[in-house]
Amino acid sequence: MGETDLAPFLKELVRQVRAQDTYDFWSGRPDADLLEPFIVDKKKAREIPVVGDPDLRTLNRINQFYGAVSLSIEQKTGIMATPVLQLSHEGFGRIVLVCGRLVVVSKNLRDAHRFGFPTLEKLAADGEALVNDAAMWIQKFNDAAQAD
Amino acid sequence: MGETDLAPFLKELVRQVRAQDTYDFWSGRPDADLLEPFIVDKKKAREIPVVGDPDLRTLNRINQFYGAVSLSIEQKTGIMATPVLQLSHEGFGRIVLVCGRLVVVSKNLRDAHRFGFPTLEKLAADGEALVNDAAMWIQKFNDAAQAD
Repeated sequence: MGETDLAPFLKELVRQVRAQDTYDFWSGRPDADLLEPFIVDKKKAREIPVVGDPDLRTLNRINQFYGAVSLSIEQKTGIMATPVLQLSHEGFGRIVLVCGRLVVVSKNLRDAHRFGFPTLEKLAADGEALVNDAAMWIQKFNDAAQAD
Repeated sequence: MGETDLAPFLKELVRQVRAQDTYDFWSGRPDADLLEPFIVDKKKAREIPVVGDPDLRTLNRINQFYGAVSLSIEQKTGIMATPVLQLSHEGFGRIVLVCGRLVVVSKNLRDAHRFGFPTLEKLAADGEALVNDAAMWIQKFNDAAQAD
């Protein structure tokens, strides 16, 4: 899969992961390999235990996904979005993306250990939907989004 | 110090701590004892190392303080506020309190290990100031605060 075949949100996610790849782990490997950890289908999910803390790789994936959503929001609307992620030790938590004084994305997380999407298409669609939803909120409450 | 002498914000904070005191640790002890861990003056701060994760007691104090702010906001404005706290391993982080779609409190944290206030008066004043500031934002962007 060449980069040109990817949905816009997936391109942004790939850029996020490659930008953080300070040890050149993904260097020279195709985008599809790099996106593969984001795909967690039912079978794969069942194999991941949900006890204890989500591991660092899972946390990184959550941060990369919402980082890509934040950057896509900025590209679409011109307003910077920053994520605030609260995770408890049991994989429960909440993520909000904030533009100025406005919450543009708000999601409760559970079983964060199993964070992922059943298919690449669903990953792209869910990311895109969050970005569009955020843009709608920014349009609706533009003054709050511009405030600081 | 009797409960009647306490500033309104401190009364709320005391209620928070006592409500979470499931092991009756504070039962029968005066409010002043219970508020004492929130007082971190310069000398006490210097004695707290800022390496590694903030310990569980410090995390509890941060949660109790912002929990009391949230409940005080609800009492003052009738709108429920919920805290979202992101803390990194080095004691850096961010706390936002959210009413509907509105961020009513937003603070960066650093050296969270040393979370506290130089005096009881400063604790009361800072808590009260956050509540008043939140009420101002809710008045300014009421539609966003009512949205979900």
